[in-house]
Amino acid sequence: MPEGAIHTLGRRPDKCLTSLSDAVAATDLKDGATISFHHHLRNGDAVINTVVAMLAKAGLRDLHLAVTSLFPVHAPLIEHIQSGVIGRISASFISGPVGEAISRGILDDPVTLRSHGGRARAIDLGEMPIDLAFVAAPAADEMGNLSGRTGRAPCGTLGYPMVDVESARYVVAVTDTLAPFPVTPIDIAQDKVDFVVVIPSIGDPDGIASGATTPATDALSLGIAENTAAVIAASGLLEDGFSFQTGAGGISLATAAAVGREMRARNITGSFACGGITGFHVDMLESGLFRALMDVQCFDLAAVSSYSRNANHMAMSASAYAGPHVGGAVVDRLSAVVLGAAEVDVDFNVNVTTRAGGVLIGGSGGHADAAQGAQLTLITTRLTAAGFPKIVPKVTTLTTPGQSVDVVVTEAGLAVNPARAELYDRLVSAGLPVVSVHDLAAMAAQAADKQVPPRPKGPVVAVSEYRDGTVIDEIRRIDEA
Amino acid sequence: MPEGAIHTLGRRPDKCLTSLSDAVAATDLKDGATISFHHHLRNGDAVINTVVAMLAKAGLRDLHLAVTSLFPVHAPLIEHIQSGVIGRISASFISGPVGEAISRGILDDPVTLRSHGGRARAIDLGEMPIDLAFVAAPAADEMGNLSGRTGRAPCGTLGYPMVDVESARYVVAVTDTLAPFPVTPIDIAQDKVDFVVVIPSIGDPDGIASGATTPATDALSLGIAENTAAVIAASGLLEDGFSFQTGAGGISLATAAAVGREMRARNITGSFACGGITGFHVDMLESGLFRALMDVQCFDLAAVSSYSRNANHMAMSASAYAGPHVGGAVVDRLSAVVLGAAEVDVDFNVNVTTRAGGVLIGGSGGHADAAQGAQLTLITTRLTAAGFPKIVPKVTTLTTPGQSVDVVVTEAGLAVNPARAELYDRLVSAGLPVVSVHDLAAMAAQAADKQVPPRPKGPVVAVSEYRDGTVIDEIRRIDEA
Repeated sequence: MPEGAIHTLGRRPDKCLTSLSDAVAATDLKDGATISFHHHLRNGDAVINTVVAMLAKAGLRDLHLAVTSLFPVHAPLIEHIQSGVIGRISASFISGPVGEAISRGILDDPVTLRSHGGRARAIDLGEMPIDLAFVAAPAADEMGNLSGRTGRAPCGTLGYPMVDVESARYVVAVTDTLAPFPVTPIDIAQDKVDFVVVIPSIGDPDGIASGATTPATDALSLGIAENTAAVIAASGLLEDGFSFQTGAGGISLATAAAVGREMRARNITGSFACGGITGFHVDMLESGLFRALMDVQCFDLAAVSSYSRNANHMAMSASAYAGPHVGGAVVDRLSAVVLGAAEVDVDFNVNVTTRAGGVLIGGSGGHADAAQGAQLTLITTRLTAAGFPKIVPKVTTLTTPGQSVDVVVTEAGLAVNPARAELYDRLVSAGLPVVSVHDLAAMAAQAADKQVPPRPKGPVVAVSEYRDGTVIDEIRRIDEA
Repeated sequence: MPEGAIHTLGRRPDKCLTSLSDAVAATDLKDGATISFHHHLRNGDAVINTVVAMLAKAGLRDLHLAVTSLFPVHAPLIEHIQSGVIGRISASFISGPVGEAISRGILDDPVTLRSHGGRARAIDLGEMPIDLAFVAAPAADEMGNLSGRTGRAPCGTLGYPMVDVESARYVVAVTDTLAPFPVTPIDIAQDKVDFVVVIPSIGDPDGIASGATTPATDALSLGIAENTAAVIAASGLLEDGFSFQTGAGGISLATAAAVGREMRARNITGSFACGGITGFHVDMLESGLFRALMDVQCFDLAAVSSYSRNANHMAMSASAYAGPHVGGAVVDRLSAVVLGAAEVDVDFNVNVTTRAGGVLIGGSGGHADAAQGAQLTLITTRLTAAGFPKIVPKVTTLTTPGQSVDVVVTEAGLAVNPARAELYDRLVSAGLPVVSVHDLAAMAAQAADKQVPPRPKGPVVAVSEYRDGTVIDEIRRIDEA
């Protein structure tokens, strides 16, 4: 006979631990373990710093930090890398002081950079087993139901940890808002969460919107945006069911605005916009330009609010969004994506990983995923930045291969990938300012007042994986002048 | 270098197959495989019959049918059992002709009966690997996003297959409504689904509400309901945060109505109602008696509608609902549950698996799960049914062990489990008609005009597992008189 329930009119056990150090014991965390984090709180996140500081205090060493993204706010991690608490890092995007430190050789083991879809694949297929996934939960209840839509620092969807919690050996939710059971509405369910720890603050909600989320207004940006929208309009893809991804930068949003005007003029209803979502995308949903938003991460509080109230503003996991291993992800249903670049070269290869000089400033995020998935991939960029040319003979670091890129749009005209003859003809016929990518490179070189520094030659500090796990480039240590 | 995307302005591959027989080939389905189904369309379901008929036509043999529940509508399966297409069955509930046929020995291998939580555990922990999970999807899109909230036969939440799709080797969605990508709102995401097959009809939406979903009005039922509510009121549990599960039967709903009146009178706000959800529960949510509904399965179309429009009416998977393996399920947070019985015995054991004479008519469903999880488990039953006593010396078949049961409420008084002395005192102090369970059994014997037939002695036709996988009883073949 099985044991019966312990029926009691009093309080029953729950999943709450009184401290993060109890979580170390409860999950049997050991030196060398892989711990994961996500970046929905972006540059407002306090969870990674708080947790790693506690793990340092608990005496753990050589941890593998498997994050989605790191931002300037995570500068305190440098101390824990130096002291040996963090021995290895995997990430999809690293900006700020930690990226600088990596480029200067702070880690013995090279960092592994994966796209958002590649990271999801590596986790789902067991290539990167996670010992302990920490989920930054804007609100949680005592049994581990988690909500991104309420609490003191609501961040909206929890698309990245949705993957981690499926296969991590243990899942610990970290929250500053313990809500009565059940928290509503639930974004990650209690059966995926082992423990809940309350800390004073998970972060600053204003940090969520760490980049611009309004369309650009300067003439140069608007010119690029208008040409980008004109390419989409001339591509033949702008019809009912059109789907779209843009970043949250000013040119991207200005492009979205111009595409929206064209959709209205043609009386077109799109199917969905996806990716990270801003209030600008919400306006497009609410004005009927798209039937749905598919949201892996809210980029601002307007998006958080929309996700909380509109059933057509839907969460998606990183696997559903961009996984190359799921038989077709959301990015594979994109009509068009507008992406940025640190550098583009004459083979249409794109670098969003390092800046001129080779310092790590980012990584793919969803760049390589959406570029490969979309029917039409547009890269918008100015000819130069900080005096350096951005259209170059060869990118310093390869993030997204040129065969995924269809058109590069600059203020001096646009270049079409030679493999896309049909598209070339359409754009020329539409009277768009089509030039060769070599001409763009020449103009960029002329407009620049500096030359691209040579690729660093030090030891490898990071390897960049493509979506499928193949290594497509390495990042090398920069040596001080 | 990785292969680039095949960029094209034309149509791209999707997950749609043109027929169910293509699904057999695509999933490499073999004789002896385990195929799973769920019962959200209840007695209106057309998917199981349609799929199994096609598998028979395709020549498959000896399949293991791993269903959640079977209803009278599934009578055509008998032919496929007789012909050897179905060689084995696992289920949480079997009513109608298939149950009768099993009791008469139609299968050589005994059926495995598990509670809803026990089934989720067996799947999650790899005890019952699924080769091919079929999901009856009221609507699907070409990439396998599934919605229970739209289409021609909307059934609401998809709580049961949420478990199956996590670990099945292949997942095939079967729908009669192929919606433009993305279907909205999504209940199961595309990364969990391998193929989509469109059939003419997945079933009759009117069949979803196959039982009564309005409170009883006859005096005897109302008496039981009033006493049940009075037990809850006197238990000390009826305070802010109170949570509640009832079935969809008339006495259960009348009890809920009476509890609701008491909550209003005391100005109490409950936390949640859970389980299968009816329009009656929706009314309790909307009138503010509960903050949330946690819904594994909508029992009627009013519940489907509420789930579609109200973010506090939340889906939960069978694992989250009732899993004994998740460190605390939703049932483990129940204050009180009101459950029915075919028989209750003097040790408070409950049978909801067989009827008098031992014929299989049901199974635990969530009975054993909620009974063990709740702080207060009430069994409501009349003294007799169809002339047979329902309070008996020993249940014919054990479904839920007596140590999970606190109170049995009948029209002739209520009995308290002797292990619950504190509760006994409270109910006596409250002036409730507390009697001994032996008195109830004696009264039932007197009121009955038939004796309970002896337990069948034929070969084992089904084994009944408790939540944790231990065998707690077997069901034996009935031999015709």
